[in-house]
Amino acid sequence: MNQPIPMIIDTDPGIDDAMAILYALSDPAVDLVGLTTVFGNVPVTTATRNTLALLELAGVDIPVAAGAARPMVQEPHPHPDFVHGVEGFGEAHLPPPARKTDPRPAHEFIIDMVRARPGEITLVPVGPLTNIAMALKAAPDIAEKVARVVVMGGAVRCKGNVNEYAEANIWQDPHAAQAVLSADWPLTLVGLDITERIVCTAADLAPMMQRSPICGAFLTKAAEFYFAFHKETEGIDGCHLHDPTAVIAALDMAPFGVETAPLTVTLEGEAIGRTREGERGAPVGICLSADADAVLARFRDRLASGRLP
Amino acid sequence: MNQPIPMIIDTDPGIDDAMAILYALSDPAVDLVGLTTVFGNVPVTTATRNTLALLELAGVDIPVAAGAARPMVQEPHPHPDFVHGVEGFGEAHLPPPARKTDPRPAHEFIIDMVRARPGEITLVPVGPLTNIAMALKAAPDIAEKVARVVVMGGAVRCKGNVNEYAEANIWQDPHAAQAVLSADWPLTLVGLDITERIVCTAADLAPMMQRSPICGAFLTKAAEFYFAFHKETEGIDGCHLHDPTAVIAALDMAPFGVETAPLTVTLEGEAIGRTREGERGAPVGICLSADADAVLARFRDRLASGRLP
Repeated sequence: MNQPIPMIIDTDPGIDDAMAILYALSDPAVDLVGLTTVFGNVPVTTATRNTLALLELAGVDIPVAAGAARPMVQEPHPHPDFVHGVEGFGEAHLPPPARKTDPRPAHEFIIDMVRARPGEITLVPVGPLTNIAMALKAAPDIAEKVARVVVMGGAVRCKGNVNEYAEANIWQDPHAAQAVLSADWPLTLVGLDITERIVCTAADLAPMMQRSPICGAFLTKAAEFYFAFHKETEGIDGCHLHDPTAVIAALDMAPFGVETAPLTVTLEGEAIGRTREGERGAPVGICLSADADAVLARFRDRLASGRLP
Repeated sequence: MNQPIPMIIDTDPGIDDAMAILYALSDPAVDLVGLTTVFGNVPVTTATRNTLALLELAGVDIPVAAGAARPMVQEPHPHPDFVHGVEGFGEAHLPPPARKTDPRPAHEFIIDMVRARPGEITLVPVGPLTNIAMALKAAPDIAEKVARVVVMGGAVRCKGNVNEYAEANIWQDPHAAQAVLSADWPLTLVGLDITERIVCTAADLAPMMQRSPICGAFLTKAAEFYFAFHKETEGIDGCHLHDPTAVIAALDMAPFGVETAPLTVTLEGEAIGRTREGERGAPVGICLSADADAVLARFRDRLASGRLP
């Protein structure tokens, strides 16, 4: 096997964030070197608590650095408790974690890790891009020191999910998104163009129960709430596989069809947070098609491989 | 409701120990003030690790004091890994706990707690009685300061389970058992006479999954191994409800039929570890019959009440 890919996931758990983190801990192709937290699906204090609690459930001791509590410029939007529940994991309630966060704020943690291992770290932001923009602003040199940046966010040739135009992560902090998506670094966008075509059902989580009963029971319970939201709003039995798809794209692009173009984020008006293809600026890899079965199979099988308790 | 009963469980987890601990944490009639660990089903280091890991899974922060690694007098017997698995919870593997033990050894912890709350603490030893005998030897005054001692152990009018004569907890340290069972304190024996007539099946654990999915998944997985042992050796679909029955008897004696007599432990020969009714000495309450349905219903319903994650 190739060397595992050193990865930092920047996250706002969130049910599909939990799926992405447990997936990353299940796949030997990932070397998860740390997690950073951000407001988004829940307040950042909840995101941090949830990240620590999830690692404790999984029996994994890696650094967690707490990040931004609010967007860079605009006023914050309400947290979508109808999607992830007030506590972030639906009706799955994890005990309070005993472990503590890294003393550094998220963006400093990211800067330190990227500088310490130039050319090695893949950043996978799956929440609003505030921490990443702050890191880039404080240390522009990280742009040439990251291995890749694989962002879950955006809706380029499809509708948004908070409104007709915008995807939630971008909409929560469009100014940060604009800075991150226009920077000159090796960035891939995993947005609604593909994540809404990958539908994870209860059957995809079920095999995990046999060899990882504790994490499997947690994820199954948490997913119930997320599935119910999708059932009500989209009429599907399951959920869109947003955040885990970004982690998978960070490991292997083979299942994805990509076009390259510069991106611009709309920063005003009713379409604020929209991600549009432009003509000027640094080109970005935009995932526009995916082999959904291959992505789901990898997600399902790694989760069921028994690496977790 | 009456005030919850302050309780210390002395334990060697162990699958049915895990059932007893999670039951105790689920029943509002219990005020679990601490746990002490002892060799038995597993080495004491494993018992301690398992106890801490189980509390962490349940999100409960109460003191755990590590106790005896071997019997008081005799050479230790091998640990029964064919009953509970090498790690003690069958094929259910909990992550390493972050929390640490109380600095005191188990017997000192017991002495301190009993003295601090005279007349209040109920001791529920569900492993070999080594810690309890050491506590009694070091501080005979605790005999009049405990509320009750409810021991899981012994086989008075039935066969043993390690051989024709002896029940495992008594057989693992018969000298400690003799000291504990002959002391002049309010002791109830919950032995094989009743625990082998209470058969817990997978159906009794299933309701727990809905509202306590994490602890439910753990216990279901752990129980598989214990059920398989019972299937192979006894031909039953389920397990004898040893340790949880002692916790239930500590809360409510209504489901139990009791006779009172002194007990003697055989200390030599092939019947070593046998518990016999005697004529001289302090009388002990011996459970000889039980309303198995009532015990099982209480066990099942409290576990399913959603107090645990």
